[in-house]
Amino acid sequence: MSKPLRLGIAGLGTVGVGVLRILRQQAALLEARTGCKMVVSAVSARTRNKDRGLSLSSYDWEDDPVKLATRDDVDVFVELMGGADGPAKAATEAALTAGKHVVTANKAMLALHGQALAEQAEAADVALRYEAAVAGGIPVIKTLMEGLAGNGITRIMGVMNGSCNYILTRMEDAGKSYQEIFAEADGLGYLEADPQLDVGGIDAAHKLAILSSIAFGTKIDFDGIQLEGIERIAIEDIRAAADMGYKIKLLGVTQMTGRGLEQRMMPCLVPQTSPLGQLDGGTNMVVIEGDAVGQIVLRGAGAGEGPTASAVMADVCDIARGLRGSVFGQPAATLEATTAASSQTPAPYYLRMALVDKPGALAKIATVLGEAGISIYRMRQYEHSDVSAPVLIVTHKTNRDALVSALAAMEKTGVLAGEPVALRIEEV
Amino acid sequence: MSKPLRLGIAGLGTVGVGVLRILRQQAALLEARTGCKMVVSAVSARTRNKDRGLSLSSYDWEDDPVKLATRDDVDVFVELMGGADGPAKAATEAALTAGKHVVTANKAMLALHGQALAEQAEAADVALRYEAAVAGGIPVIKTLMEGLAGNGITRIMGVMNGSCNYILTRMEDAGKSYQEIFAEADGLGYLEADPQLDVGGIDAAHKLAILSSIAFGTKIDFDGIQLEGIERIAIEDIRAAADMGYKIKLLGVTQMTGRGLEQRMMPCLVPQTSPLGQLDGGTNMVVIEGDAVGQIVLRGAGAGEGPTASAVMADVCDIARGLRGSVFGQPAATLEATTAASSQTPAPYYLRMALVDKPGALAKIATVLGEAGISIYRMRQYEHSDVSAPVLIVTHKTNRDALVSALAAMEKTGVLAGEPVALRIEEV
Repeated sequence: MSKPLRLGIAGLGTVGVGVLRILRQQAALLEARTGCKMVVSAVSARTRNKDRGLSLSSYDWEDDPVKLATRDDVDVFVELMGGADGPAKAATEAALTAGKHVVTANKAMLALHGQALAEQAEAADVALRYEAAVAGGIPVIKTLMEGLAGNGITRIMGVMNGSCNYILTRMEDAGKSYQEIFAEADGLGYLEADPQLDVGGIDAAHKLAILSSIAFGTKIDFDGIQLEGIERIAIEDIRAAADMGYKIKLLGVTQMTGRGLEQRMMPCLVPQTSPLGQLDGGTNMVVIEGDAVGQIVLRGAGAGEGPTASAVMADVCDIARGLRGSVFGQPAATLEATTAASSQTPAPYYLRMALVDKPGALAKIATVLGEAGISIYRMRQYEHSDVSAPVLIVTHKTNRDALVSALAAMEKTGVLAGEPVALRIEEV
Repeated sequence: MSKPLRLGIAGLGTVGVGVLRILRQQAALLEARTGCKMVVSAVSARTRNKDRGLSLSSYDWEDDPVKLATRDDVDVFVELMGGADGPAKAATEAALTAGKHVVTANKAMLALHGQALAEQAEAADVALRYEAAVAGGIPVIKTLMEGLAGNGITRIMGVMNGSCNYILTRMEDAGKSYQEIFAEADGLGYLEADPQLDVGGIDAAHKLAILSSIAFGTKIDFDGIQLEGIERIAIEDIRAAADMGYKIKLLGVTQMTGRGLEQRMMPCLVPQTSPLGQLDGGTNMVVIEGDAVGQIVLRGAGAGEGPTASAVMADVCDIARGLRGSVFGQPAATLEATTAASSQTPAPYYLRMALVDKPGALAKIATVLGEAGISIYRMRQYEHSDVSAPVLIVTHKTNRDALVSALAAMEKTGVLAGEPVALRIEEV
């Protein structure tokens, strides 16, 4: 039996409490599986006296997470405070400098400072692990970095923000507007303190940036992500997409192209019958495509006490079992800088527009598309009693430049009643 | 950069060739990811001169896999011959005795001899890894053993034989009998040389036995699996199940109960709308439930050159990165012997029967069920021009003993025209 693995845990919100619970309830199991007794030397949080549903009396208390991170009786610093900068980053850096292993759930910190932290960890020959930072309880980091290590990764797609997926699913089920369901989700406490992190796609984009680095051996490039949230999705689009056999998802996609790394986090249409299309509510899904393995789909809870604590504990167990290894799957010094490619991978697009009710209006739109080299795969004009006619078009594959120029040309035809909606259809 | 990792590969069928292809095509990637150059010292197969689509001239040839396994210039013995005993087992044992790491795709060998092999590997302090043995390209061993190490596992369900799932899916799509589709699949080369391994559920049961051991810290107990193949599934059952909102799958289920370890591999009904119900064709799916993580679903190709080779290479990369660890997730000496529990976990059941067309026939059946304490959830009697009336019943949850006694009592009512069909409905 090895000597005990001593943890220092900073951050005692939902996840921190979940980790403490697993350490208590599964002590025997964890020791059997790792050969190490796990002990918590000390904990730290913003507020000391608060009912967390369990007693902290058996742990030392530190007000300062940096002090916690560097204690002599801490082997692994578990960072569960969150926030890209501030105390989380300071304490993580201090831990690495002091030669401690670090386990974190902090996607923002990794997306923005991952390269420097990885270099620091690798120089100190300690582990920096972050399974809980991406897709909650789904072991996607491990799958990508270890389980698919023999593959050239060709594409990753993911629904990695449960709140957005909840909102989109609820809009469809309840037939209500984005604004109504947003208010409902906010009232239920489903959204981050800054909801823009969720509905603006930022939180999910942090996760995508981390996956890209592992998949393609590149330096994390959060700024290179083409980012668009779900705020502009109308209930009409959800209905129209359903009518054409699709669901709208806030979908992250990353793939290496001839022109550079293409990373997108934006609302897309996916077939209703695909695993991504069937993903309702707050569940997460990551689809990984490799040149040998084909397509692997992973599905599970993307947030919550138990699932996120499960991921944190997987990292702790790996460290207890002696796993070290590179932070992003290969030495940080060998990760390549990339050029961000705007989304030029051709795709079909969904277009919804209202046309003025005049003869020849639809012909003008069709002509504009044709002149941009875009051919129409399916088109529907709906009954209307209005002065404008709702029209849906699904195009054949086209590139985004052609689409942008077609949309600009449409504006000049004078037959549009309002701004058209264009959404990419991701081929899954 | 560490010294090269030297492989000896025995078995050059589809998977062996796939591994050689990855080693050649991804040499740079593998070295970047593991820090090791990987070299193949020697290979072995039944037939030396055979067109495998790639040249073997750069590798030493060994006729005898045991000799290959013990060569001084082999660090990792990669066993891809198959077969529970014979050369595969002899060579694996020889490799472990010689202090070599072993990577194998051999589910039968592990299911029948896993405990002894694990003890031998752990005594020699070498790795024995087998990701490719279960669910092909899906990294389910890694997910269970490492990614969910912080969880008490509550249940695992899996569709882990692509050939059976293909047959069941094709029967439904084509509306043809088991015999017709079996012949079709056999003609397409989808079945093992001994098709009973597939359609009898044996291959999938080998996989389930391995998963049980990791999940519950128990000694592998293949003989304890309640095993039933798909040969008796009639097209009428597939149609009737669909009509009630279900799909029939050859489903493996393992869970620890108060009375012991319950392992089943048998045709079950699952809801059409569940991830398992939506799994068509040759794809595999494993659903793992943990007390912290909730439900994790993994889906991917369960067989084929690329997917299986991907799993083999994941193990090779783990070894290159220095991962050792217990074979079944905790030291083999600490795995507990279990009692096999017959499937007593209550479940709803699907019953299909033909009743003689006489007044009171259905009442007799309902009475028998009621007397056995089984209540009816849904019942359908179909139009018929025959002398017998087809009747479908979905029961509320009941235990299997009650069902068995009810079926015995039904036989005595004299209203059955033919033997009734009873299938468990797994709550997923």
